[in-house]
This record gives sequence, structure tokens and C-alpha cells, in this order.
Amino acid sequence: MPAVHHKLLLEEALQDSPQTRSLLSVFEEDAGTLTNYTNQLLQSMQRVFGAQNEMALATEQLSKQLLEYEKQNFALAKGDEEVINTLQHFAKSVEELNSLHAELATQIADKMVFPVVQFREKDLTEISTLKEIFGIASDEHEAAMVKYSRLPKKRENEKIKAEVVREVAYCRRKQHQAAMQYYCALNALQYRKRVAMLEPMLGYTHAQHNLIFLYFYWYLKFSYSLY
Amino acid sequence: MPAVHHKLLLEEALQDSPQTRSLLSVFEEDAGTLTNYTNQLLQSMQRVFGAQNEMALATEQLSKQLLEYEKQNFALAKGDEEVINTLQHFAKSVEELNSLHAELATQIADKMVFPVVQFREKDLTEISTLKEIFGIASDEHEAAMVKYSRLPKKRENEKIKAEVVREVAYCRRKQHQAAMQYYCALNALQYRKRVAMLEPMLGYTHAQHNLIFLYFYWYLKFSYSLY
Repeated sequence: MPAVHHKLLLEEALQDSPQTRSLLSVFEEDAGTLTNYTNQLLQSMQRVFGAQNEMALATEQLSKQLLEYEKQNFALAKGDEEVINTLQHFAKSVEELNSLHAELATQIADKMVFPVVQFREKDLTEISTLKEIFGIASDEHEAAMVKYSRLPKKRENEKIKAEVVREVAYCRRKQHQAAMQYYCALNALQYRKRVAMLEPMLGYTHAQHNLIFLYFYWYLKFSYSLY
Repeated sequence: MPAVHHKLLLEEALQDSPQTRSLLSVFEEDAGTLTNYTNQLLQSMQRVFGAQNEMALATEQLSKQLLEYEKQNFALAKGDEEVINTLQHFAKSVEELNSLHAELATQIADKMVFPVVQFREKDLTEISTLKEIFGIASDEHEAAMVKYSRLPKKRENEKIKAEVVREVAYCRRKQHQAAMQYYCALNALQYRKRVAMLEPMLGYTHAQHNLIFLYFYWYLKFSYSLY
């Protein structure tokens, strides 16, 4: 493995030396590992979101179920008023708890899951698109070079030769451009990486932070209402 | 519908009059409604427990996933130490949050779901068992009475007659006993009903109460550790 630089140098994109290619492969491997890890992380985060969402739905159902007691038409309803009142009280409290869960689910989606989805869709997808474009441009450049090297040496082919030379120059320019875009994206990914890993967890913490005060407020409200 | 009493009177179990049967049917209808409602309530509560349990599992997975970052062997690991440290910090915090969720799941199971399961398995199942026993005893008593009414009036059958009379008396005693047990259980259910409906919700509130302080403590601990 070559001594690893922090950056792919754009000025080396044109020369396309074996050293540069070797360094490129290190950056590519890193991007591949990051893509795999991001996919797994996203799965875990989506599971947390799913659980939070299910919690909101489950408490909503429980709240409704408590209110259903009143509508049961019990044959022996005498003395049920107290039960009905208390269950209504619990239902209201569970409904408020449900709002908290629903709110937390929304925040988890927005502040934790969404940044990772965006990182994957935007940054990581861009890398793989640029890699493809760069591969095609490299192949075309290679093909043009082969065509050039096989040109007959005779003078009467000057016109054809000039055409092939133009083609080689065009392909090299295209490859150079593709390489620079690709290098840029790979360099940028190294900076984005840290933010992409930490931003969603800060979002998650922030969501919990918001919740905790609402939750505490809910608790105080509910506790006092019991007495 | 007859004027509904609060209780099935045990002293009327022997007479087994149409009025008593009518009152019994009111108690039975009430028990049936309560059984249906309890089953639905239990489903809602089990859904809340399931969601809480899934939340514990999901946060556990997320915590582990954050620790996985370190083990990814990134080709470009330079500058990752800070990310690793911060993710470890988050992982620890999520792990503690996971303990809270797991603890809450256990409390929801013990204090909310279990009392309802027990009410169903013990009280409601007892009612349906006693109803069955009472039904069989009533049928047997009926059959013995039919046998008695069809006895030939001749003197020479005294021995057979005495046997049938014994059978009728035995069946009546059995039915009387079954009726008393069944009435007792139905009366008791009316008292148990209120407790059975309110106890799990108090348990749920208590579980939330316990959690809220742990949660708040977790929050303070985590917040301070960030600075």
C-alpha cells in the first residue's frame, strides 16, 4: 500500500499514473466500506423509527379501547360511572402520551433517519455515478489509444491519422474531466463522512431532549390530576 | 327485563324460579360483554407491550451498530478517532436508554398486561367453567325429573320409584351446589370487574412514573457529559 495522502490531487488526474490509480483505489475502498456501513446504520435507525411509530399507534389504540368501555352496554351498568370516569381520565392521559410518541417518531424521522437517507441518496449515489462515468471515459480513452497505436505509418493516411489524434485528444479531455469530478467527490466524501455519522445521532439526542421536557410536563399534569 | 338486583341471591338457587333464571341471564350477559371487552383490552395492551419491547430491541441494535464503526477497517482511517470516540459516547448513551426501555417493557408486562391475563385466566375462565358445570347439572336434574314423571303408578314398582326419587334428590343437590358456586362467582365478578379494569391502568401509570425519573436522570447525565 502506498503512503496514504489525505487527498486525491486534481493536478494528477491528467497524468493518470499507477501511483494515482493506486491511491484512487484506497479512496474507493474507503467509500465502499462507508456505503456498507451506512446501509446497516440506516437499517438500525429505521428500526428505531418503526418501533417509535408503532408505540404511537399502540398507545392510540389503547386510548380508544379505554373509551370503548362506556359503549359496551353492560347489562349490569349500576356503579359503572366511577369506572367510566376513571377510564376516560386514563384514556385522555394515554392519548396525550400518544401525541408525545407521535411527535418523537416525527422528530426521529426528520432528524435522525432523513439525514442518513440524504447522505446515501446524495453523496454515496453521486460517488457511484461518477465512478461509472469515469470508468466509461477511461475505456473510451483506452480504445482511442489502441486505435492510434495501430495506425499504419504511410503518408497517404494523414487525414485518418489526424482524425484519430483528434479522437484521442477528445477522449483524454473527457476522461480528465470525469477524473477530476470523481476525485473531487471522493475528497469531499472524506469531509462529509464525519458530519454524516454524527449529525443523525445529534438529531436523535435533540429529539429525546425535546421529548423529555414534554414527558415530564405530561407526568406532572397527570399526577396532579389524580389527586 | 326484571328490576335488576345487585346480587344473585344464593337462597334462591334451590328454588330455581323463572325470575331467578331471568336475573341469572342478565348476569350472564354482563359477564359475556365483559369477556369480550377484556379480550380486546388485552390485545391493545399487548400491542403497547410489543411496541415497548421492540423499542428496547431496536435501541440495543442501534447501540451495537454505532460501536461497529470502529471495526469497519476503513482504508482511510486518519482523523477517525474523533468520530469513533463520539460514536462510542452515543452508543453508551443509547445503551442506557435501551435499559430504560427494557425496564419499562418488563414493568408494562408485569403491572399492566399480567393482571388482565390473570383476570381472564382466573375469573373469566372460572365463570365459563362453572357455567358449564351448572348447565350439565341442570340437564341431569331435568332428565331425572322426566324419568320420575314417567314412572308407572303401580304399587309393585315401589323399589324402582324409590331409586328414581333418590336420583332426583341427588341431582337436585348437585344442581343446587353448582348453582350456588356459579352465582357466587357471578356476584364476585361484579366486584372484581372494577378492580380488573382500573388496576392495569394504575400499573401502567406507575411504570411510566418510575421511568420518567430514570429518563430524566439519563438525560441530565448525558447532557452534562456532552460539555
